[in-house]
Amino acid sequence: MTEGHGVTLGELAERTDSRLIGDPQARVQGIATLEQAVPGTLSFLSNKRYRRYLGGTGATAVVLAEADVPACPVAALVNSDPYLAYARAARILYPLGERSTGIHPSAVVDATARVAAGAWIGPLAVIGARVQIGARVMIGPVCVVEADCEIGEDSRLVAHVTLCRDTLIGCRVTIQPGAVVGSDGFGFAREGGHWLRIPQIGRVRIGNDVEIGANTTVDRGALGDTIIADGAILDNLIQIGHNVSLGEGSAVAACAGISGSTHIGRDCILAGDVGIAGHLEIGDRVFLAAGSRVNRDLRGPGSYGGVLPVDPEPLWRRNMTRLRHLDELARRVRQLERLLEGVNRGAEPEGS
Amino acid sequence: MTEGHGVTLGELAERTDSRLIGDPQARVQGIATLEQAVPGTLSFLSNKRYRRYLGGTGATAVVLAEADVPACPVAALVNSDPYLAYARAARILYPLGERSTGIHPSAVVDATARVAAGAWIGPLAVIGARVQIGARVMIGPVCVVEADCEIGEDSRLVAHVTLCRDTLIGCRVTIQPGAVVGSDGFGFAREGGHWLRIPQIGRVRIGNDVEIGANTTVDRGALGDTIIADGAILDNLIQIGHNVSLGEGSAVAACAGISGSTHIGRDCILAGDVGIAGHLEIGDRVFLAAGSRVNRDLRGPGSYGGVLPVDPEPLWRRNMTRLRHLDELARRVRQLERLLEGVNRGAEPEGS
Amino acid sequence: MTEGHGVTLGELAERTDSRLIGDPQARVQGIATLEQAVPGTLSFLSNKRYRRYLGGTGATAVVLAEADVPACPVAALVNSDPYLAYARAARILYPLGERSTGIHPSAVVDATARVAAGAWIGPLAVIGARVQIGARVMIGPVCVVEADCEIGEDSRLVAHVTLCRDTLIGCRVTIQPGAVVGSDGFGFAREGGHWLRIPQIGRVRIGNDVEIGANTTVDRGALGDTIIADGAILDNLIQIGHNVSLGEGSAVAACAGISGSTHIGRDCILAGDVGIAGHLEIGDRVFLAAGSRVNRDLRGPGSYGGVLPVDPEPLWRRNMTRLRHLDELARRVRQLERLLEGVNRGAEPEGS
Repeated sequence: MTEGHGVTLGELAERTDSRLIGDPQARVQGIATLEQAVPGTLSFLSNKRYRRYLGGTGATAVVLAEADVPACPVAALVNSDPYLAYARAARILYPLGERSTGIHPSAVVDATARVAAGAWIGPLAVIGARVQIGARVMIGPVCVVEADCEIGEDSRLVAHVTLCRDTLIGCRVTIQPGAVVGSDGFGFAREGGHWLRIPQIGRVRIGNDVEIGANTTVDRGALGDTIIADGAILDNLIQIGHNVSLGEGSAVAACAGISGSTHIGRDCILAGDVGIAGHLEIGDRVFLAAGSRVNRDLRGPGSYGGVLPVDPEPLWRRNMTRLRHLDELARRVRQLERLLEGVNRGAEPEGS
Repeated sequence: MTEGHGVTLGELAERTDSRLIGDPQARVQGIATLEQAVPGTLSFLSNKRYRRYLGGTGATAVVLAEADVPACPVAALVNSDPYLAYARAARILYPLGERSTGIHPSAVVDATARVAAGAWIGPLAVIGARVQIGARVMIGPVCVVEADCEIGEDSRLVAHVTLCRDTLIGCRVTIQPGAVVGSDGFGFAREGGHWLRIPQIGRVRIGNDVEIGANTTVDRGALGDTIIADGAILDNLIQIGHNVSLGEGSAVAACAGISGSTHIGRDCILAGDVGIAGHLEIGDRVFLAAGSRVNRDLRGPGSYGGVLPVDPEPLWRRNMTRLRHLDELARRVRQLERLLEGVNRGAEPEGS
Repeated sequence: MTEGHGVTLGELAERTDSRLIGDPQARVQGIATLEQAVPGTLSFLSNKRYRRYLGGTGATAVVLAEADVPACPVAALVNSDPYLAYARAARILYPLGERSTGIHPSAVVDATARVAAGAWIGPLAVIGARVQIGARVMIGPVCVVEADCEIGEDSRLVAHVTLCRDTLIGCRVTIQPGAVVGSDGFGFAREGGHWLRIPQIGRVRIGNDVEIGANTTVDRGALGDTIIADGAILDNLIQIGHNVSLGEGSAVAACAGISGSTHIGRDCILAGDVGIAGHLEIGDRVFLAAGSRVNRDLRGPGSYGGVLPVDPEPLWRRNMTRLRHLDELARRVRQLERLLEGVNRGAEPEGS
């Protein structure tokens, strides 16, 4: 239905819960940005930075908010959340590709592994002893699934993914290339000038509907498990330390690092490159600004930040020179205040 | 001895150098956190954050410090370093799993490689020309060991590890999945508007008893070698630039980046996400707080830091707005000081 | 010519555009640092930190700037850009190794892929449907090239590289181990408490002469393409979000993260661990200091920074305590200024 001849605006309006202004029989085949759209495509406006492209767009129709209707030169799908409506439209216009099934002859699958019917084990994948792979799971090329892992239905390891021993993956989980789940965490005790490795005997448990980005690493628990709850989403190049728990629906953007035994609540949003120290409690619905470094418990809900602004280099350097003497500056201000109290008293008119 | 029926508290006390309070014939089979422990398990208390769980623990015995003995409701293994004693007990209760040996038929091993007896080359590993692999080395699935590498006895590449040409790995080294050792570093010269790649002709030399975390990268030297000394430990997602040297026993937590030609002394601890610029000298026993960015030499021993605190967003933003004018603020304070000197002089009682 | 018996200083001077002070018939076989050089090697001095090693160097000749000639105890190749001259000399003394060709029997190559003559497909590489691989391309061990990718002439994937579907790679591109190009980006819309994945239908287009470091990730476009322009160079462990464009000749050092839809101009230099928020415009020839976090547009050319200095821990902590009250401190200074205006007026001699 959606292939080849596209979808009508009428159908899109209905399936995205939008109000259509324009011809319901008009059709679109794909989606493009306002700037690059051509006739036959749908576009969207959800970030005001791109409003300047609305007037000149070549799209057949645009998903947008009520306020932008007057400026829209073409058909409009009006929605109070244009980004969500665009997401829904994109899933209609670009359904998932065909599924592969079966076990590629080059894969190395242990005789004791159980692979459900309809699953796919791709070229050169390695599946260890007693692994259980659910229905319609796709294990891409060169993935390694070590012994005793379990992967729930409809999950997908894209390529080059490593699941270390005993890792549990829920249903409908997607893991991008290069991610490592279940590696030994950074657990060492100092013994007479040497680091003594502590056996990491916990596991990683990934819930349902989780997304894990490329080259992200999730360490197994030292004792007990590292937990990524249902619906949490992780971007690329993130480090999740041993025994971290990340709550339901929380989102972590790229390059973040969460140290061992820290618990993060549900529906949190960590922007890019956030760092969180170990053994902390972060509440529900906490938002952390990009680049923040957290070293204390944070009660949710609420927005927190702690990152310097960027300035032209000379200004930045001058301010930093001052910052290194900020404690001293504050003392000088206190001293001035004391002096001025004295001066005021001394300067007060007699008899006042 | 330790499998199936566990270890007696008496034996654990002796082998962890702890003082036992309780029945030396009681047995434990495993280790768990205070909160999750059940009878038959050993637990430990080394971080005061978890003291609240001591009174209600279900453990058969707890490793703890003298000061926590009165609050311990069960048997106690008393040690001045409970974390180390826990580490030792964990190694007793969870000895390393069985070793695999031999060369998996799916591995691609160059005819000129020398693989010692008792080593293991896992499924789909690739071993290049003239590689030397020591006794009891384990090369996990899908690892790539390029030409002329040497790997010392008892080392282990878990899975998906890449060792580029000429890399030297010592004995008892563990490398977690996805790590890359010996990649070409970021060496370019600017030539008429273009970047000219400089041949990277050095190697990486990894000492004995080193640990390298998942998806960590260690670049080969441009000239001379990049060196990770004996007993150093690296966490996940760390970048080690070309010609860095990291001293004996130093520990680097996740997400750190060390730029080219910087030398770091021995027994340093770099907390998570530390960044160090190139061509610097960091002394012995330097501790760097998480998130610090170092751009000058640091003499050891000593603790250093440089990272903003995290605050509720409105407070943080207000302070940052002020910070951008800190130089100006400091000038205004100086001006006030000058004025007040004048006022004080002017306001001084005559004849004083 | 250069193998075995090396190159004469006369030839090196000519081919590196340097002025020779010394015997043009003297020969060097290799390059070493000033400190480690032995007779028969060439060294160089471009960073003044290493000037102290010049007087005692064992090198046969040193590439250096005019100002360092008087202190040079051996033959000199004098160049206004000694680093570039060293780079050229290194390329002469260490020409690229021999090329492999052909398809390794363990590789899994789809029947519809087109592999040019003279290309190399290494052990256990996986090449998908309709992939096009240009002349002299080298695909190293265990690389995965998904369906419909194109790789231009003379490019090289070292090992363990993943190219996801539809990725376009130019000519003379080098991609280090563990890099992932074309992974799905972090595109989700919030739908009733859940994250709805948005199909990522764009591609990654990598220009000519690009370098991509180990374990770096480049996400495919959501709509339209993610673009790395000709001559750009990326270090290790970098995250490039969906629909980023990086301009010609720009260089990004390790551990940087660039969020989605940000455009970076040409000839920019981002030092290590820079973070840039999404949907921003960074102009041409912008230099960003290591560790800076950018959350606004930056017009080029110019140098920008925003990162704290590192100080001994007690000083740093004291200053940070003050920083958390900086807004309040600034108000107090303003109050002092007001008071002092009053005092000055009050203290003014009558009649003035």
